[in-house]
Formats: sequence, structure tokens, C-alpha cells
Amino acid sequence: MNRCLQFIQQSCLFAILLLGSAPTLADILVEKQRFEIASFDTFNGQKIKQLAVGWESYGTLNSDKSNVILITHYFTGNSHAAGKYAKDDPAPGYWDALIGPGKAIDTNQFFVISVDTLANLGVYDPHVITTGPASINPDTQKPYGLSFPVVTIRDFVNVQKAVLESLGIEKLHAVIGPSMGSMQAIDWAAAYPEWVPRMISVIGTAQSDAWTTALLEQWAMPIKLDANWNQGNYYQSEPPTAGLIGALMMITQDALSPAFFNQQGAGEMQFQPLEPGPLMDINQNHSIINWLSSRAAARAKNMDANHLLYLVRACQLFIAGHQSTLDQGLSKLKAKVLLLPSSHDMLLMPYQSYEAQSALNKLHKENELILLDGPLGHLEGVLGISQQAKRIREFLAQ
Amino acid sequence: MNRCLQFIQQSCLFAILLLGSAPTLADILVEKQRFEIASFDTFNGQKIKQLAVGWESYGTLNSDKSNVILITHYFTGNSHAAGKYAKDDPAPGYWDALIGPGKAIDTNQFFVISVDTLANLGVYDPHVITTGPASINPDTQKPYGLSFPVVTIRDFVNVQKAVLESLGIEKLHAVIGPSMGSMQAIDWAAAYPEWVPRMISVIGTAQSDAWTTALLEQWAMPIKLDANWNQGNYYQSEPPTAGLIGALMMITQDALSPAFFNQQGAGEMQFQPLEPGPLMDINQNHSIINWLSSRAAARAKNMDANHLLYLVRACQLFIAGHQSTLDQGLSKLKAKVLLLPSSHDMLLMPYQSYEAQSALNKLHKENELILLDGPLGHLEGVLGISQQAKRIREFLAQ
Repeated sequence: MNRCLQFIQQSCLFAILLLGSAPTLADILVEKQRFEIASFDTFNGQKIKQLAVGWESYGTLNSDKSNVILITHYFTGNSHAAGKYAKDDPAPGYWDALIGPGKAIDTNQFFVISVDTLANLGVYDPHVITTGPASINPDTQKPYGLSFPVVTIRDFVNVQKAVLESLGIEKLHAVIGPSMGSMQAIDWAAAYPEWVPRMISVIGTAQSDAWTTALLEQWAMPIKLDANWNQGNYYQSEPPTAGLIGALMMITQDALSPAFFNQQGAGEMQFQPLEPGPLMDINQNHSIINWLSSRAAARAKNMDANHLLYLVRACQLFIAGHQSTLDQGLSKLKAKVLLLPSSHDMLLMPYQSYEAQSALNKLHKENELILLDGPLGHLEGVLGISQQAKRIREFLAQ
Repeated sequence: MNRCLQFIQQSCLFAILLLGSAPTLADILVEKQRFEIASFDTFNGQKIKQLAVGWESYGTLNSDKSNVILITHYFTGNSHAAGKYAKDDPAPGYWDALIGPGKAIDTNQFFVISVDTLANLGVYDPHVITTGPASINPDTQKPYGLSFPVVTIRDFVNVQKAVLESLGIEKLHAVIGPSMGSMQAIDWAAAYPEWVPRMISVIGTAQSDAWTTALLEQWAMPIKLDANWNQGNYYQSEPPTAGLIGALMMITQDALSPAFFNQQGAGEMQFQPLEPGPLMDINQNHSIINWLSSRAAARAKNMDANHLLYLVRACQLFIAGHQSTLDQGLSKLKAKVLLLPSSHDMLLMPYQSYEAQSALNKLHKENELILLDGPLGHLEGVLGISQQAKRIREFLAQ
């Protein structure tokens, strides 16, 4: 490949990683829908009044409503899994390479639907509808802040179920999700086994282990240390933007691999350890740090720091089926399972899918594990998913 | 093994990881020595007046001063590599399993010496002597804070060289160090090749790449976000203890492996994702987080937050020989090289030693790489070093 072209493509890819998904020839035009629940009972026994979430769909629901595939989204994502809102959108939804007419998740055949989670990170994104700590509490007419109930992956699942039921849907053809979306997909299969005949966990895990719980806490740390956070009460003052940016910098790095990060650093950034600025002045940073920080700052504009803390907590609390042990949760499964970890994932490492597979095997549950290959690390499950498009298509046809 | 005994040993090991080294039958009694330089020229062209560092040694300097092995310490460590200060010390120096009479680094044969780095993290440890941002600037009679010059791995090396020269030493038998100590060992071999016939890099790297630079920045983040940090001016007020604790929690996790962390979490911590406290209350944490935090708080008492930032910077700036490229630095080497990365290291991963080896091979420099095995991750190079004691002994005899 022409070296210059390669450079441009690499630079572009690194930018895309932080801004959205890779542009492809997307044809579907989509619209965000709104769904409301007057009073929602959370898994931990509390109530959320006037709950609202966004959802979108691709393809057509058939007459017996048997062609539904639910896509569950990742931590920094939302229900925009495919298509564009307008023809001139710079990028389509994150799994557009997988979802569309004639694609592996074929919208000529399936009705594909995705729902914004509660406490969605991108609460100020005009295309996200969510309810979380930044929302107005109808009882007080003030933002919830930390008075918002702790929500779990099960709550995300139950909201999705309510959306589906509002459309008269009583069963899925499959549920598929990457990362935090894998948690939701697995919980769906454990909590509502009659609904889920097929489940695909991409770059996922069947539980948050001690390591993952502590790693997620690292993301919460910068926010809680930012004086502007003020125990979550910042909706009438300056928000903890520096803390949120710090968290996003960590998330960006954790979702990549050293090899890819270094390749990009060596390219666009022309990274060199002995950079004059930081050598001469403790207050100056390496260019790669400034670059990470400025990209995180751009992303932070649509996001809320408390929402990030609530998503961290939802992931920390996750265990398949929300039972005491993994076996208890997975024993409920009736789904055929496809596990797609990414070989260089530093965040939800392949061992986590292998552990899920061991547990499934012990319980004699039908499953298959395929390692995604490629340099992207965790993000391989988002940007590199096409490499298993054929297997996903077959799995959905079985 | 008796299950109860196994439990106690595991619990003990996890405690040791955070408090110090594993107790062994150490016989050497050591004393911290003080070394001063009236005016020290830093690598970046500034001056440090009345520089003082601590050092200690094990074994006896022979008459022609040809039996000197320098040990360079890791990020959170100091020059206490072996022996005890008093017979009832709970634990000896961190590499006591390696250094002592009849051991792989045999103090019956070698004069083994180690020096506290500049900006040593444990500045309030009574057994550490260091000069850094927490020190009094002789010109102002106030603590330096961020007016302390940026210091580099080369400055640590140059201070060590001055200590050695004060003892009439003009050449080493070998230099050996783990982690940040590897950076110093490699820089010694590149900067002063005539001094260094043998060099051992343990859990190390020949340069801070983009990934490592960004990972190190994660450790700086909590401190800089703590309002008490106040741009480094906190010596007359409350220090940024919460930020320092956050950084130490990250360092602890990054220095372990998921397998070991989870094994310990499942043991002593009885980790479960769906823990009632954090499920019911966003302000409560999982027990594993509280435990990490309380251990970090105990360690933080002897440490200074600005010193951590300066050590982060020294490591971020590191490239062998402090040249523009790795090849430029490594081309200077006259040392035989032994590289000992740890197979499950998440911090300075094995690829970094393999990259150093590739560069050395390209330059036709004699080297050998052996992967440390075991579950500890990065810390395998500290606590598990005995597994290569035999090879280290042979390497030193060659």
C-alpha cells in the first residue's frame, strides 16, 4: 500500500476510534423513538417515575413478530447500532458493517432493535434519550444526582423487555451485544430463557470479577476526585469536566491494545519519549497525552459524569442472571451461545469468555467460542466485527 | 496442601504484596548511608543544590574495587534491596531472596550497592533519603513543589555514579534492576558502556512507548484532580492524600495479573459482584475496592504525591541512552544483556523486552531473554525472581 495513503488511513482510524464508527456505505435512514414507563421497579427494589428511553430499529417486524433481533450497546455507546439519521451524517451506527440489507444481520429478514440504556453516558447527545442521575426527579423537580437509584444490567434488560412488549413482541430471534452489551445479552438469556433461543456475546464477560470491578473503579476515580463533582451535586454549578475527561482518557486506552496504540502513536503523533516540552517543564505533557485529552474533551461535551459512575456500578454488579454464582445464572440458559472475545483485548480479556465457556460446558449448554483476531484490542469487537460476519449469519440461521 | 494453611498463606501473600517483601531467613544487617552533592547538574540543564540520597550495601568491596554490583530499584521501592535494619524487622529488602551470603548475587563474593532515587516516592519513610519536590529548596528555605527540576532516569544514574565514584569505584561487575530499575540498568549500559560489562533488565523496557506513557499518566491523574494538590503547593496545607491513594490503588492493580488478583479476591475478600452494599447505595463500594483503598492509605503515609508525579515523568521520558532513537542508545552498549520479562505482566509487558531484544539483535549485541513464569504479573520480577536465581548466578560468573 502507498505509504502516504496508509498514513492517512491510520490517522483517520485513530480519530474514528474516539469520535464514532467507521463510515461505510450505509443506506438505512433511522429515527430515534421514545418510550416511557410511568413507574419502573428497579432490581434493587426502588422506583423510577416517568422513565424515558430512546430506541431505534432497522428492518420490518413480521406479522407473527418472530423476526426480532435485539442489539444491546456498549458502555460509551447508545442504541444507534446501524444506519444514519440523515444522509450527510459523517458516520453510521457502530455496527453498520454487520446490520443492514443483505448484511450478516440482514434487515431484509430481521427486525433489529436497540434501546438506550438507563443512565446512558451520552445524555446530552441530541440522539440519546435516557433517564439517570442527570434527569429531573418528578417528585422534586430537581436533577436526581446521587439520589437516583443504583441501576443494574438487569434494569437495562427489563427496560428493553418493556419496549419489546409495547410492540407486542414476546420472543426474540436472538440477542447480540458487545462489551457491556454482552452483559445485557447474557443476562437476557439467563433471566428470560424462554425469550432467547440465540445469544451472541461479543468482547464480553459472564460476570464482573474482582479484577474487572477494580479496573472499572479506576474510571470512577477521576470523577470522584474532581472538586466540581461535589458528591454528584453539580447541576447548578460547574460540572466535573476534568474528571470526566480523565475517565474518558482511561477508557480510550483500555479499549485499545498496546500494539495498535503504539502504531498510531508512532504515526500521527510522532511519539518520542524524550520530548522537549515535558523534559523541561513538569506542567507540560507529552503530545500523546494532550491529544488523548483533547479528544476526550470533545467527547465529554455530550456526557454526564454521574452517568458514568452509574454505568461503572451497573457493570461492577453484573453476574449472569444476577444470582449468587455464575452456575446458578447460566444454568437457566436455553439459548445457543456464540462467544466472540478479541485476542488482544486488555479490558474484558479472552480469559473471561473462556471462563464463561467452561461454566457453560460444565452445564452442558451448547456454545461456541471464536477469537476475533486483529490489533485493535477490545475495540476489535466494534470496529472489526465484520471478520466474523459469516459465522454470525450462519449462527442466526441455525 | 491443607486448605486452611493455603488460605492463610494466600492471605499473607496478598498483604505482603502491598506492604513489603516476603520474609525469608535474612542474616545481613544493613544501615542506610547518606550521600550529598553540593550542586548537581540535571540532564535537562538545571541545578539541584545540596542534593542528598540514601544508599546501602551488602558484602565487602575488594581491594581493586572490581566486585561491585549495582541494584537499581523500582517505582515504589528504595535502596533497601536486601537484609534488615534490625533483626526484628518484619521483612527484609525486596530482593533478599536473590542477594546475600551464598545466594545468586553472592555477598561473599560481591559488593552489592543500591541508591535511593531522586524524588523517591517514600520520602517520609525513615529509611529513605532523597531529594525532590518535597525537599527544602536551599535558596528559598521552602519546599520546592513544582519548582523542582524535571528529573530523568539519567539523573538517577548520574547520582548513583557519583556515589560509586565517592567510594573510588570506576567500573561495575554488573547492574541489575526491576521495572523502573530496569530503565536505570539499561541507561547505565547505554550512557556509560565502559562501566557496564553485564546488565540484567528484570520486568523492564528499553523505552517508554506511547502506551506506557499514557498508562503512567493514568497514575498522575488522580493526584492532579485532587483539589488539595493545588498545583503542587500543599506543604503548608492538607496534602492530596485521596489522589495519592487513588494512584496507589491503580499501581497495585497494574502490577498484578487478573488471574492472581481474582484468586486472591475469591479467597480473602470472598468477592461477589452482586454485593448488597454497592447494590443498594451508590456511595458504597465493593469490599475489594475498600480493601485496596485501605491498603493504599496505609502505604501513602510515607509517600509524597508530587514525588509520584516526578517519577511518572522520569519514566515517561525514558529511552535507552536518552537519545532520539532506541538504536542510537543501544548501539553504545558493551554489556552482555539478560532480559527477564514476566509472562503475565500487564504493566511492562513481555513485548517490551522482545522489542529490546530485536533492537539488540539487529545491532549484534549479545543478549538472552528468559520469560519469568508464574501468576503474579509484573510483581513476579520482585517476589518471584528466585525462579531465575541459577541463571542470574551463571550470568554473573560469565
